[in-house]
Formats: sequence, structure tokens, C-alpha cells
Amino acid sequence: MTANEIRRAGVEDAAEAARLLHDFNTEFEEPTPGVAALTEHVAGLLERGEATVLLGGAGPDGIAVMRLRTAIWTGRPEAHLQELYVAPAQRGRGIGKALLEATMAAAREAGATGIDLNTGETDTVARALYESRGFSNREGSPEGPSMLFYDRELD
Amino acid sequence: MTANEIRRAGVEDAAEAARLLHDFNTEFEEPTPGVAALTEHVAGLLERGEATVLLGGAGPDGIAVMRLRTAIWTGRPEAHLQELYVAPAQRGRGIGKALLEATMAAAREAGATGIDLNTGETDTVARALYESRGFSNREGSPEGPSMLFYDRELD
Repeated sequence: MTANEIRRAGVEDAAEAARLLHDFNTEFEEPTPGVAALTEHVAGLLERGEATVLLGGAGPDGIAVMRLRTAIWTGRPEAHLQELYVAPAQRGRGIGKALLEATMAAAREAGATGIDLNTGETDTVARALYESRGFSNREGSPEGPSMLFYDRELD
Repeated sequence: MTANEIRRAGVEDAAEAARLLHDFNTEFEEPTPGVAALTEHVAGLLERGEATVLLGGAGPDGIAVMRLRTAIWTGRPEAHLQELYVAPAQRGRGIGKALLEATMAAAREAGATGIDLNTGETDTVARALYESRGFSNREGSPEGPSMLFYDRELD
């Protein structure tokens, strides 16, 4: 497998996917339930067809997680890129770009009319990647107001 | 039904929900497929249990659409408030607040660990409402960077 080759994860890849997700949140100091719990979660999502997981590189060294749901406006699927991560030692080789393009291809293949994602204002590398692939943070036009993501925990 | 009473829509309410959604996008000059198509989409989502639709006021005069999916990090549901609208003539009576609170209650009831949404930088009334109910646009801490929403259409 070449560095930028992307493959779709099956249930048998859940532990590899979980390892990458765990490393992702560990690197960015976000909470992670650990590899064992993540393996169960990923396997469950894949078994139930609730997520598309793409793996990139020989390690594998990168992961993308895409979710689909039926849009209320179109009645057709819409895609959400929920996670995108490349291991630090493998960055700069195009794995992230290849994962993003493969995610868009998988979304199109599923009939999705659009794809969205959330990222941080200061994540300039990620933002440049998304903008280079046609994503926009602006509402209405390229000079429109920013679109913001809000969340809160529920007790 | 009092102005701020909220009820959960069933399939039989699809046409009323569709009317409010159509008015929403018409008011904000966003594309809408029309009431008939929206009625079909809403009915399909409700029949398949893919959306929770809440209606507020006697008209009904307001609508909230919530979606749930299983979070990869927790294995539990997470909620997304996809649409929130109150008809212009009924604004300022607390219907939006009541819909937001009922959405959060429905999310908790479904076992969701969190809820998120997207809104525009210049939608100050909506932002104030979300912030008054504990939503944050900031990453990590109240002084952290903004969290941004990106999207693109797929051909």
C-alpha cells in the first residue's frame, strides 16, 4: 500500500481506527475513552452502517470518519466529516488531502448533495486544506458572514 | 394551547411542519423545494424515526428540528439542532426559548451527552439565545478560539 492509498475500514479494522482516534484526542488534549472502548464504538457504528471510516497510509497513518443523514430540505443524504487525523510523523505527505478527497468521493457515491464539517478558527492548516478543496465558512457569498459552530454538554 | 406550549410533531403534523420550514427559508432567501416536497421529507424522517420535530404556539408558530446520532467518542447519542424558526408575527413571546428548552429536554430524554448547532456570525438574536442557554462557540475555554462551520456542495 502506498502512502496515499486510502481504503474503507471494515469491522475488522476497528482496533486500528480506534488507535488513530485515541492518538488524535491525546495529541490535542481532548478526552478519550481509550482504545478498547473506541474499538467497540467504531465496530458498532460500522456494523450498523452508521459511519464510513477511511484509513490512509501503510500504518495506517490517517483516518477520516464520515456520517450521513437524510437532509430535510432535499430528502437526499448529506454528509458530515466528523474526524480527520494524520499521525504527526506522516504529515506533509498528502495523506490528509487524500483522505479528504476519498471522503468526498464516498459522499458522492452515497448520493450526498453536500458535505460539512467543524474546525477551529486557529486550525490554519486544516482550514487551508478545506478551503483548497472547495469548502467555505461564509454564508451566502465568499464575503458573507462566518458560519459558526456552537455546542454544549447535557447533564 | 398557550403560546409557549410545545408539542412533539407526529407524521400527521408533517404538512404544518413543512409550511413553517418553507416560510423559514423563504424569509431568509434560502432555497426551498416547496411545501409539498417538504411534507414528504418530514413525514419520511418522522416515520423512520430519523428526526425529532417540535412545534410551538397555537398556529403552530414555531418549529425545531433535532437529529440524533451515536457519537464515536462515547457510544451514546449526541444531538444536533438543525432548524429553529418562529414566524415573524409571533416573535418576542418566548416561543424560540421554549422550543430550544424543549429540544434540550428531548435530547436529554434520548440519552444525549451533548447538543450542537450552526448559526451565522451576524445572527445576533439567535446567538444571544443560544449563549443564554449554555451554548458556546469557543474551543476549550470561554476565551478560546471560535469554532467554525464549513460546508460545500457536491456535484
